[in-house]
Order: sequence, then structure tokens, then C-alpha cells
Amino acid sequence: MPNWLLPENIADVLPSEARKIEELRRLMLDNFRLYGYELVMPPLLEYLESLLTGTGTDIDLRTFKLVDPISGRLLGLRPDMTTQVARIDAHLLNRASVTRLCYAGNVLHTHPSGLHATREPLQIGAEIYGHAGLEADAEIQELALSTLALAGFPQVRLDLTHVGVLRAIIEGDAAAARDEAALYLALRAKDVSDLKALTANYAPQTRDALLALTQLYGDIDVLKKAREVLPDLPGIAKALAELAALAASALGRAEVAIDLADLRGYQYESGAMFALYVPGLPNAVARGGRYDHVGEAFGRARPATGFSLDLRELARLLPTAERKHSIRAPWGNAPELKEKIAELRKSGEVVIQSMPGHSNELDEFECDRALVLDDNSSQWILKNLG
Amino acid sequence: MPNWLLPENIADVLPSEARKIEELRRLMLDNFRLYGYELVMPPLLEYLESLLTGTGTDIDLRTFKLVDPISGRLLGLRPDMTTQVARIDAHLLNRASVTRLCYAGNVLHTHPSGLHATREPLQIGAEIYGHAGLEADAEIQELALSTLALAGFPQVRLDLTHVGVLRAIIEGDAAAARDEAALYLALRAKDVSDLKALTANYAPQTRDALLALTQLYGDIDVLKKAREVLPDLPGIAKALAELAALAASALGRAEVAIDLADLRGYQYESGAMFALYVPGLPNAVARGGRYDHVGEAFGRARPATGFSLDLRELARLLPTAERKHSIRAPWGNAPELKEKIAELRKSGEVVIQSMPGHSNELDEFECDRALVLDDNSSQWILKNLG
Repeated sequence: MPNWLLPENIADVLPSEARKIEELRRLMLDNFRLYGYELVMPPLLEYLESLLTGTGTDIDLRTFKLVDPISGRLLGLRPDMTTQVARIDAHLLNRASVTRLCYAGNVLHTHPSGLHATREPLQIGAEIYGHAGLEADAEIQELALSTLALAGFPQVRLDLTHVGVLRAIIEGDAAAARDEAALYLALRAKDVSDLKALTANYAPQTRDALLALTQLYGDIDVLKKAREVLPDLPGIAKALAELAALAASALGRAEVAIDLADLRGYQYESGAMFALYVPGLPNAVARGGRYDHVGEAFGRARPATGFSLDLRELARLLPTAERKHSIRAPWGNAPELKEKIAELRKSGEVVIQSMPGHSNELDEFECDRALVLDDNSSQWILKNLG
Repeated sequence: MPNWLLPENIADVLPSEARKIEELRRLMLDNFRLYGYELVMPPLLEYLESLLTGTGTDIDLRTFKLVDPISGRLLGLRPDMTTQVARIDAHLLNRASVTRLCYAGNVLHTHPSGLHATREPLQIGAEIYGHAGLEADAEIQELALSTLALAGFPQVRLDLTHVGVLRAIIEGDAAAARDEAALYLALRAKDVSDLKALTANYAPQTRDALLALTQLYGDIDVLKKAREVLPDLPGIAKALAELAALAASALGRAEVAIDLADLRGYQYESGAMFALYVPGLPNAVARGGRYDHVGEAFGRARPATGFSLDLRELARLLPTAERKHSIRAPWGNAPELKEKIAELRKSGEVVIQSMPGHSNELDEFECDRALVLDDNSSQWILKNLG
């Protein structure tokens, strides 16, 4: 095996792509900052049990494990940064007030989420802690939408759903409550025959409601239809009202779609959830939602809502940035030359000094100007190159 | 054990420190760019044998290992990014011309380099490939110095040394050549008695030269003394001339010191090496040098020289950035309020909307202004706070 070969679904990022990612990263972190979100940097490695606190088997299976030679204990490479940031809010910052945090960093997965997916996504996200009201969800949704717009995605579809609907339906039905996990899977797959089999012995109201969920997707009118066909339970009314408010607040910023059966993340989430789609990618580019219980495991349950996305995947959808033009300069120790180069760089120009014997190679960098010594004036001047 | 506890020498980076690190990171990458260095992003994980290609036992012992569930092969978490970037130059880019690359990313060590050192440094660096001449070393040295100056370290000490001196001394002496590793360690430690014992049976010229090395440290006059006391070998003359040129090119930018016995990294390096020191830290903040053989293992030996540093350590030495002042705004759906907030954020102001019921908490963010509805004009205006 050649020693430059990389593991499957692991890749180097070369200059043109790296530059796009870096620019997106800065643009997003800067936007988070304008909304008051403070940057934190959790570690790549943690004790496995801390890292997996409050998460499920699927996360466990996606986590690389290794032994810490210092403690002899099992460590995990973070597969996701959300729990880490919740730990920082709950334990380290320990503020009583509303806390806004953001982060950007590599996460690692033992298995890719798809055939061509990377096992090393670059996760970037923002989270707000300490406010249980819908305003926090609305702010996160707006932050996600404004960030995507700034990043060059004016056309976004916002898919909304709410775990409160399913929770309310099964809450009063012991049989349904026992089947929660199976119901969730059948609903996600919109598998009506499976759902019919599962619900055969439920109370008719529960059964009808669950089957109705598989039909409740489409544009915003779905909410109206849901109010008609779903049972009149306080939990359902609250969830539908929240979705209506979130849909209204996205008006003019995104095309809104509702899918009451699409409950990906149902196990961890506790309220409204959203997914953002952009042209050119079948999967959601960003996902967000409320997960109020995440801090509990760290001794401090705080309301929490946030969103995150993979910067690498998003960058791939953007055109490669046009190469900024650079200046070619000769090598030399003349103080005038050095000063001129320093001055140009200070003004933001990229100046590449050719190493002696390599002056013909610089074309690769698309230098559009050259710094040359003018014979007449004995000054260093910029000359345009063909 | 509480589940918020982190492994030893692993830590979260909280907002004020994270912000400093992020600002330093951008400033450095931007400076690298002005010199024509292109950003690359190698992966955190590689096949162990690729990662350790051309490195030594010490690097091996510092590398976390884990098994790839897909291939069943051993992976390593990168302990250093230099080899990875050399691989990218040699194999992926495969340019014939001079190539300038830079990088920034976390690396992981099984053991910290010191009691309080982190096991997760944030390595940032720049490398130039394809030019064997001293101009490349001079450019890297200048880049390192200009970067530190921009980062807020005007007072820097540059320590220079050159592996060519020791190589030339032992080249003609079979006994000394056999002891190379031991000689290197004794010299690094300036352990004269150990060195005397080791060299007891060497040719007198070799012995005297090796013992002389332990005394050859101090200011730039050391080079003059070295020319007098070291044997008249072409390798030594070349090395001393290179050091003199590099010292001259740093004139006015750093205090220059020479230490011909300080050969840390001798095994991998092949020419001039430097270390940069700043007030407040006994260890070098940055290290650089020539290591022409690094690409060989990837099938393409290219001359190479570069430098790197740990951004986390450097950031600790800088004062915490003064908190930028922010604007507190109420929550609300009034279009005028939303527009005003969007406008302020567009102009670069941090605007934090208080969540209903939490408006008294925002003092924590040191908001110095508040967006309020003026009763008279019915306009949203900024009001100074205490």
C-alpha cells in the first residue's frame, strides 16, 4: 500500500477548497458574534462516558474509542460538539442568565453517513441556553437562515416539525407509549402498513392520529389540516401554534414546508425542530431544534436550542472563489525592494518573491503584476503582466 | 467521577480565550497569505504508517492509536502536521515549481511535553517546498518574525543553529558517526563529562571540535569564534556562512543568539534551524528549519523549510481582548425593530435581543447601549447605558 493513501472517507483539503471553507467559517462565526454568540472550543478527546452522556446507541457506534495512556481510561473522539457545548454551559460557565455559545471544529465518525460522506465533518453551530420560550427557537432559526443567506444561499427551504405532536398522541395511551421507539421509526419511514400493524390494538383515537401524521406534510396549510384531523389535546395545540409562529417568522426568508412525521432526532429533541435545504443537495445542509434535557446529565437542566451544519459539505456547493491576483517580485536584499514589498503586503496585496532560478514558475499563481526596477527612475514599480 | 471532568492536560477553551485564539489564527493565516502561502487542511486521522513515515520513536510514542472499523487497520491521530503537509506537496499537488503551503489545526499527544502543557496544541505553520537555497530559509524566518510582530510580540529573540556543523564534524570519523545519536543527546544537554567519555577514542580533531561546540553559544560573535576553533571543513564553512546570512537578515527584527550545540530536531532537520523566544515564556514559542528529506518517503524528495507554533500557548501570553461593547435590544416582532437590528448588525455592531423575562441579565455582556423606542418620535434609537 502506498504510504500517501488515506483511510476511506477521509481526505485532504487542497488550497482552493480550503480557502472557501476558511472564508465560510469566518463569515459564519462573525455572523454568530453579531447576534451575541460567544465562541468556545471544546476538546477533540474526552472520557467516553462524558462524551456519550445523554446520547444514544447510534452516537456510541459512530464514536472512535481509544485508551488514555495517562489514566488508562477509555476516551472518545468527539462525534458531535453539541453535548460538549452543553457541558460548558452547564458546568464551566454556570451562568444563571441566557447564554449564547457558538463553535466550529472537526468531528470524527467511525462510519460515514453516506457512501461519499466524509468521516471528518467540520461542524459549526450555535446554541442558546436558559430560555424555554419560543423566542429562542425563533432566534436560532433566524440565525441559521441569515447565516446561509450571507454564505451565498439565497434560496432555502425550511422544513419544520415538532416532537410535541407525537408525544401528546401517545402520552395518554399506555400501549402506544410502550411502542414509542417503533412508532418513531415507522413514522420517519412513512411506513403505513407497519404503522397499521403496530397500532391495530390501540384506542381508535390514537390509531387515527398516528396514521394521520403520515399524511401531514406539505406547505404551511398542513398546520390547518392538522388542527382539523388531530385530536384536540393541549400538547398538540401548543406544538401546532409554535410551528405556525416559526413558519410566520421565516416568511420572506425561506420557503416553508411542514412534515409532522419527519422526526429525525426525536429521542434527543424536545420541541420544534427544523432542517434547511438548498438547491443542489438532497440532504439537509443544516439541522436545528430544541433539546432541553441535554444539560441534565451535567447536573443542570437548562432549556436549550441550537443548530449546526457541516462546513465542508456546504463549501462544496459554492463556486470556487476566483483567484485573487498577486504580484510577482524578485528576490533581493535591497532595502528599497524590501520596503516596497512590505508596503504592498500591508495594503493587502499578495506578493510572492521568486526564489532565484524559479522566476519562470510563478505563472501558476496567476500573478497579474510584477514588481520591477524602473531603469529611468530607479524606483520599484508595478508592471502589468500580459 | 463527575461526567464533566476532562482527561489530564485536556481543556475546554472558554469565550475570552477562544476569541484571542481565533483572532490570532486569522491574523497569522492572513499574513501567510500575503506572502503567497496557500492554506491546506490535512485530516486528523491517517493510517499510522503514513503518519509516522520518516519520523522517529519519540513521535511514535506521542501518537494516539486506534483501529479503523472500516479497514481494520491501525490509525493514528496526528501528533504534528508537518509530515502531512509534505505529503500533500509531494503527492497531491505534485507541482514542479516552488510551493508555499500553510495550515492550522489541532494535533494530539499521548503525553504532554511538560507538566502544564496541553495534549491538544493548536498547531499553525507555513512551509516552502522546492527551493534548496538559503532564500527559502530567509523567507520562512522573516515570515515567522513578521507574524509574531503582528501578533503583538515586538520583542523576540531568534536562536539560530545548523545541523551541518555536527554532520561535518562526524562525517569523516567512523567512530563518531556510529555514536551520532548519543553525541546529539550529550550536545543538547551540554553534558561535557558525558561528551568527554564518548569521544575518548576519537581522532583529536573530532574530539576537540565536539567539545568546542558546547561553548559555542551567545551573541552573533560566536560565529567568528566558531570559524577560529572549528576544523576547516567545507560543511562547517557553509553552515557558518548560512547562519551569518540568516542572522544578518533578522537584523533590526529580533535579538539574535547562536547555539551550535542546541540541535533539537537534529534527526529530521537538514540545515539551518531556528527557535523564537518571547518575554514571559521560557520555552520557544515557535520553531523552524530545513528538512529536505521529508518528502522522500512519499516518493518525491523536495527541498523543504518551514516553521510552526502552538496558537494556544501563544494566546495565553497576550492580554485578554477588551470586551467590545454591545447593544441590548428588546424582543419583538415589529418590522421597524427588526430592520433597525439588522441594520446595526450589518454595520458590525453586536446586538443582543433579550429573551422575554431575561432583560435584566444582559449586564453580563457589558452592553453599553440599548435600543429603545423613543416616545416622542416613535423611532427606535440608541440610548447610552450608565
